[in-house]
Amino acid sequence: MSAAASVTQLPTPYLLFLGDATEAAYAKTAFGLRDWAPEHCIGEWGCDTATISTGLPRLTPKEARARGARGLVIGIANTGGVIGPSWVPFLVEALESGLDIVSGLHVKLASVPALKAAAERAGRRLIDIRTPPPNIPCGTGSRRAGKRLLTVGTDCALGKKYTALAIARAFKARGVNADFRATGQTGILISGGGMPMDAVVADFEAGAAELLSPAADPAHWDVIEGQGSLFHPAYAAVSMGLLHGSQPDVVVVCHQPGRECVLGHEDFPLPSLAETIDLNLRIGRRTNPAIRCGGVSLNTAHMDLGAARELMAHEGARLGLPVADPMRPGAEFERLIDYCLG
Amino acid sequence: MSAAASVTQLPTPYLLFLGDATEAAYAKTAFGLRDWAPEHCIGEWGCDTATISTGLPRLTPKEARARGARGLVIGIANTGGVIGPSWVPFLVEALESGLDIVSGLHVKLASVPALKAAAERAGRRLIDIRTPPPNIPCGTGSRRAGKRLLTVGTDCALGKKYTALAIARAFKARGVNADFRATGQTGILISGGGMPMDAVVADFEAGAAELLSPAADPAHWDVIEGQGSLFHPAYAAVSMGLLHGSQPDVVVVCHQPGRECVLGHEDFPLPSLAETIDLNLRIGRRTNPAIRCGGVSLNTAHMDLGAARELMAHEGARLGLPVADPMRPGAEFERLIDYCLG
Repeated sequence: MSAAASVTQLPTPYLLFLGDATEAAYAKTAFGLRDWAPEHCIGEWGCDTATISTGLPRLTPKEARARGARGLVIGIANTGGVIGPSWVPFLVEALESGLDIVSGLHVKLASVPALKAAAERAGRRLIDIRTPPPNIPCGTGSRRAGKRLLTVGTDCALGKKYTALAIARAFKARGVNADFRATGQTGILISGGGMPMDAVVADFEAGAAELLSPAADPAHWDVIEGQGSLFHPAYAAVSMGLLHGSQPDVVVVCHQPGRECVLGHEDFPLPSLAETIDLNLRIGRRTNPAIRCGGVSLNTAHMDLGAARELMAHEGARLGLPVADPMRPGAEFERLIDYCLG
Repeated sequence: MSAAASVTQLPTPYLLFLGDATEAAYAKTAFGLRDWAPEHCIGEWGCDTATISTGLPRLTPKEARARGARGLVIGIANTGGVIGPSWVPFLVEALESGLDIVSGLHVKLASVPALKAAAERAGRRLIDIRTPPPNIPCGTGSRRAGKRLLTVGTDCALGKKYTALAIARAFKARGVNADFRATGQTGILISGGGMPMDAVVADFEAGAAELLSPAADPAHWDVIEGQGSLFHPAYAAVSMGLLHGSQPDVVVVCHQPGRECVLGHEDFPLPSLAETIDLNLRIGRRTNPAIRCGGVSLNTAHMDLGAARELMAHEGARLGLPVADPMRPGAEFERLIDYCLG
């Protein structure tokens, strides 16, 4: 069932490649690995024009190899999932320094002739993890045993993966039998398996989500990483199929306070939290009539703790739901976990 | 831009293959070609267990070849788009009788070893038309000039393609500059081009819809064939991306009176017309704030004319919208066309 090679087959530990990114939101694979699989991360590297940093030591591929790195992970998740032409000489250098390359982009590494040639010359591997398994069935809509929680959002790249990882960890800390279910390249790299939902052919999108969280013990929870947003002008199809196929009992709605427009689409204002909750419940009810909202996850990384807690309290009172930042442990997050478990 | 080979490159005229179908809804490719491209249809053929008929002469491949047929079209659109194992000896016989095979299924013809071998032996072609073009971009959400109408539905296989074809024909009859835009295999076979929306990778679904109806003269109408339903447990992702990317000014909602459940999913009751209109407008408003419902298309093929007209009048009064069966020319359909043109 697992769509990706297990982590033990992947060339860990990694050097994280930041490409030419100047905005952290586009390097979410690098940041996700740093935060959730630090044991696999040796350092970072990028084009000279990259202005962001994960805070890990900046190492050349040769230096990273000397410190034990076996693979270079492309840490970028960009529009269209393409390989930046400016990256190619850097990736060739990594191959020539003895590192395999791991990519979660749509475009396959071997489709770039210079990379294919360099990998063959250096005897290194080009590993694409955004490749769905063959023979995904169409969705059935049939109910299956076990509990499911899906993170959904007002936009892309604002905390759906972190929220799902933190909730799965908190469930386990309370002794609940739970699994994190990855739906994107970063989650798959972190957890060693999953389904690259945005790379699945649209007719099979709901079926792929059904496959990702199979029937389980009635007390077991799958905590499923959300993708995109029902309000996103490019990616709503992915969110729709994932919502229908996951049949969540609980959705947790993720948002980044202060973000007013869809990332990269300035003419699309973000929906309100109330509207996001309402549309997700309305659509989710189609395959699970008992669906409910378990709370709101706010990404307050850019705020100080006092302002963040004040905002959580205010939004919680306004919406009548637990509101927390899963990356700030405390009473708010524990209340959200209580409410999700029901 | 066209996703499929033009009709002139396809091996027309055709023998229509009905497989082992016992329900007409699963043979919609055969019926669509009979109704909208009769000049390309020589006859029909099927397994001995097929119980349906298009009314065309039943011919063996050898007889059809003698009457001028050059290709056999698989007339079935089944769940998962698979090649029935029982069909294979029949398809081999067609190849050996001198016919190419044309398929709009997901599964590629050449993936069946017996077909690949027979085609090579007989020197015939295996043509898969459900293959999207390479390098589809992600959706942008940017508005583009020209008018667009999209047919949407309460379910699959109840008249979205016929409605779009009939509306495009009626627009042209009134001197309106209009194009039918095909989104599925049958529409592509009928019109000679289009985008197989359900075979596109989900991340690019809205982008594929944007590509299908490009910027045009402000007075030009694209009449876009709908796919699936926002309420379908397997295929809603396709409908979602098509709705966002098409940015329709007008949606026409299609329904088959008497159908109470999703075809093949008896535990999913169909949504009401009012709910279908409401959800499509709510979601469509995201990429076109001026979206409106142009009316309701009822597939009344199974009713007598009196009962059909009575139902149209009743539903029209109830919903406050034009309600017509596009396959029954008359005052109702003309009112729907008036209202769509605005």
